[in-house]
Amino acid sequence: MKQKAIFYHAGCSVCVDAEQRLAGALNPAAFDVEIVHLGTDRSRLGEAEAAGVKSVPALVIEVHPYHINFGADLSALK
Amino acid sequence: MKQKAIFYHAGCSVCVDAEQRLAGALNPAAFDVEIVHLGTDRSRLGEAEAAGVKSVPALVIEVHPYHINFGADLSALK
Repeated sequence: MKQKAIFYHAGCSVCVDAEQRLAGALNPAAFDVEIVHLGTDRSRLGEAEAAGVKSVPALVIEVHPYHINFGADLSALK
Repeated sequence: MKQKAIFYHAGCSVCVDAEQRLAGALNPAAFDVEIVHLGTDRSRLGEAEAAGVKSVPALVIEVHPYHINFGADLSALK
């Protein structure tokens, strides 16, 4: 069964680069990758926060949050 | 041709987790992943720094550095 990976971003340049190079680099045989734009889909902010996301871009693999470089603080998107 | 990805770490728990979950998640058909322990292989510090790595764990895909969460500052390893 594939693992779930969610890439949270906010459209910033740091986010777009990480999406293309890192979220796109995950093994497609092992991961289902969902891309969520928290700037346009604020209804997912709570879920991201609950997963431990503090800033974007971030990748949550199953329940584990990985902050990738720094684009914006989550609080700036609220 | 596969892209080169180098995962720099220092053996810390944040590093080990990121190595297992993120460095290990890259598409093996697209990436050659090298794991470098900067705590034990200090000769690679200069190369990591030149690639823009400021802290570990970090993943450098070709020439692009991605800092993943935060384990230790590079300066602490010198």
